[in-house]
Amino acid sequence: MKYTISTLVENHAGVLSRIAGLFSRRGFNIDSLAVGVTEDPTVSRITIVVDGDDYMVEQVEKQLNKLIDVIKLKSFSAEELVRRELAMVKIGTKASERGDLLSLSKIMGGKICDLSNETMTIELSAESERLEEYLELLRPYGIRELVRTGTIALQKGNVSFG
Amino acid sequence: MKYTISTLVENHAGVLSRIAGLFSRRGFNIDSLAVGVTEDPTVSRITIVVDGDDYMVEQVEKQLNKLIDVIKLKSFSAEELVRRELAMVKIGTKASERGDLLSLSKIMGGKICDLSNETMTIELSAESERLEEYLELLRPYGIRELVRTGTIALQKGNVSFG
Repeated sequence: MKYTISTLVENHAGVLSRIAGLFSRRGFNIDSLAVGVTEDPTVSRITIVVDGDDYMVEQVEKQLNKLIDVIKLKSFSAEELVRRELAMVKIGTKASERGDLLSLSKIMGGKICDLSNETMTIELSAESERLEEYLELLRPYGIRELVRTGTIALQKGNVSFG
Repeated sequence: MKYTISTLVENHAGVLSRIAGLFSRRGFNIDSLAVGVTEDPTVSRITIVVDGDDYMVEQVEKQLNKLIDVIKLKSFSAEELVRRELAMVKIGTKASERGDLLSLSKIMGGKICDLSNETMTIELSAESERLEEYLELLRPYGIRELVRTGTIALQKGNVSFG
């Protein structure tokens, strides 16, 4: 089962290295990790997706809580969250394929963010699983280059974590 | 000046920790860092934005190239790239403000991804500087929670790095 761990940390050099080190030393496998600033410039928010069981997530929480730069953390199951990941995909295109790709991009809620005589670059945001499905549909056109952000997430509804 | 370093790495536990550790030990300040999988599941792509000068970036490149899990890396100035960052913003709203927020979200190219009686959550993707401007426009409504991915980037035009 996949768990998403939202973590608020002091924005110090070294904190990311310590957190990533903790996961690798203990053999906990990170599915994705995203780091961004929050409304407080001294605080960063790290969103970590791990694949494991309740026991493993409990261990991860305990270890993370011991780190001095960790202010607050909480783990969530997928149903509690709105989750999104951003991808940019550069696709090799002939002029005759542009119409099809534009239609696909529109249906997926994507945007064309770069264009050349041989390529089109589409940005897409969706839940990671949905993003995989979108990429599957784009693959036949020839993906030249792909970059993804990892998942970010907020709790659904009125509640706030931050 | 800001530089964006695109790095392809073996998808091993520990590589992120080593890369983040390298930056913190040398006192190089990371503006943002995003990790995502590529079309090859054994390879991850890490996009790092640093604020520094040519000399500093050269040092970073040298040190990164020494790491065994680093397959390839290149640094770019902002003009060479299409850059995007994703944010999700939960805003406290009264029913009477929803129309205004919906208009703002549309103009910004955003999407409403969650709604409750007290809140609206908007997802936005843009260049980081533009994202800051958008957040500035949303702040008067009351930002309850904010999560950001860090910047991802692809080279403009026909060329590919991956």
